[in-house]
Amino acid sequence: MLVNSRIIRIEWSDCDPAGIVYYPRYFTYFNACTAALFERALGMTRPEYLKAYDFAGYPLVSTQSRFIIPTRFGDDVKIDTTITELRRSSFDVSHRLFKQGALAVEGLETRVWVRTDAANGGMKGAPIPQDVIERLSKG
Amino acid sequence: MLVNSRIIRIEWSDCDPAGIVYYPRYFTYFNACTAALFERALGMTRPEYLKAYDFAGYPLVSTQSRFIIPTRFGDDVKIDTTITELRRSSFDVSHRLFKQGALAVEGLETRVWVRTDAANGGMKGAPIPQDVIERLSKG
Amino acid sequence: MLVNSRIIRIEWSDCDPAGIVYYPRYFTYFNACTAALFERALGMTRPEYLKAYDFAGYPLVSTQSRFIIPTRFGDDVKIDTTITELRRSSFDVSHRLFKQGALAVEGLETRVWVRTDAANGGMKGAPIPQDVIERLSKG
Amino acid sequence: MLVNSRIIRIEWSDCDPAGIVYYPRYFTYFNACTAALFERALGMTRPEYLKAYDFAGYPLVSTQSRFIIPTRFGDDVKIDTTITELRRSSFDVSHRLFKQGALAVEGLETRVWVRTDAANGGMKGAPIPQDVIERLSKG
Repeated sequence: MLVNSRIIRIEWSDCDPAGIVYYPRYFTYFNACTAALFERALGMTRPEYLKAYDFAGYPLVSTQSRFIIPTRFGDDVKIDTTITELRRSSFDVSHRLFKQGALAVEGLETRVWVRTDAANGGMKGAPIPQDVIERLSKG
Repeated sequence: MLVNSRIIRIEWSDCDPAGIVYYPRYFTYFNACTAALFERALGMTRPEYLKAYDFAGYPLVSTQSRFIIPTRFGDDVKIDTTITELRRSSFDVSHRLFKQGALAVEGLETRVWVRTDAANGGMKGAPIPQDVIERLSKG
Repeated sequence: MLVNSRIIRIEWSDCDPAGIVYYPRYFTYFNACTAALFERALGMTRPEYLKAYDFAGYPLVSTQSRFIIPTRFGDDVKIDTTITELRRSSFDVSHRLFKQGALAVEGLETRVWVRTDAANGGMKGAPIPQDVIERLSKG
Repeated sequence: MLVNSRIIRIEWSDCDPAGIVYYPRYFTYFNACTAALFERALGMTRPEYLKAYDFAGYPLVSTQSRFIIPTRFGDDVKIDTTITELRRSSFDVSHRLFKQGALAVEGLETRVWVRTDAANGGMKGAPIPQDVIERLSKG
């Protein structure tokens, strides 16, 4: 599977009065990392791939995280993101955040592939296009 | 002019490693206070008044703020919000944030009234409805 | 166990371009709900109970969430928060977010009770005070 | 004066249900740009320069902004940041955000240089070190 790595600078604004990352920010990082994985796999920006695949996003069904080592403002952390399972219309994404080489935070997301439902303006699950599956699967 | 007051609890998540409010959060407070002023004046929630007046919002044109006294997590602050000037299709909003009776932060916003532009799907300025002007002007 | 309920208005600023809550915001809500549960159980504000129990917070060890029904700006949702397990120096918190009576989002947190470590200025786990256990356990 | 430029990708999480940047985010960008200007001028990261100059930060006294062109998720914008005036213990910072070459948002900040006040644990204004003035003034 394709693994995309990003270096993220922990900003002052991501930290709380204890001087460590306010944990909901990790989900903001992870969300951006999922988008970056798709951008790299599909060779398009997010606005472009939403249009190209006529799809409405990949809303989260569930998420699990473990917080092992605290991170602080000024830290440059590395996040490795990859797909761990691809199903017909849903998939799992793994994020592993490293601080100086040590695993600091781990996140696992289950997401569904959705398209706009012309009938009612809402969204409904749809099969992940074969082309997308192939591009995400490349090592 | 109508003045709307809100008590806001400064949350842990609004504060930075210095233990004081991370200042962009004040704009989040102010934005919510502007919405609350309109909700009270029009007697509708924001989703309801967007629909009722077929309007697309009141984007910010400019803002000015002064930061006089720092606020900390656990503080309960009071924000007084009022319209200071109503023009044909724009208006000024004043926010005064008090900590234990002392003026701590002051914000002034200039906003425009916009509607969806059917021609291109964008937005364009529109006159503020007379009914809205009257309701905001009541003391 | 004590259950604390909070009504939270989904704000415009909590929603993304799809018009639904940007999911990291749920963790901001949940974090505030955990603080509110402790405030109610201990009869003190968070700054007060941090001081009273000479404790440094309850950092998150892990979290799990399920997203069942999307919520939108203007929704008033109800979050029920309670402790589901109390151990010597860690505990589990459950958050159940309801939209018009239906379970929309579920969150489970495992947190540790920590005190400042005088030796090195860091933090270390400590037993949850018996008094705190009793207050959280009251129905 | 030294001008520091940053390219910032407008993230999905920075945008509201209207699909445009939720304006308090601009202040988060600007705050990070001020830190980046100092990092470049002083050749240190923010945690390093806080320590090196025994200083506690540069809290905001006032800010003014103009919002000229909306920006949307997926936009890559360029922000030019520079000092426009240096006084004894305060200074002005200008941020100009460009979208495809056009000025989209403008921000002006007045900040004070503060040090920890040993007497009471608070902060107090202090003269900007001559070395810092020289480094910020280099073109």
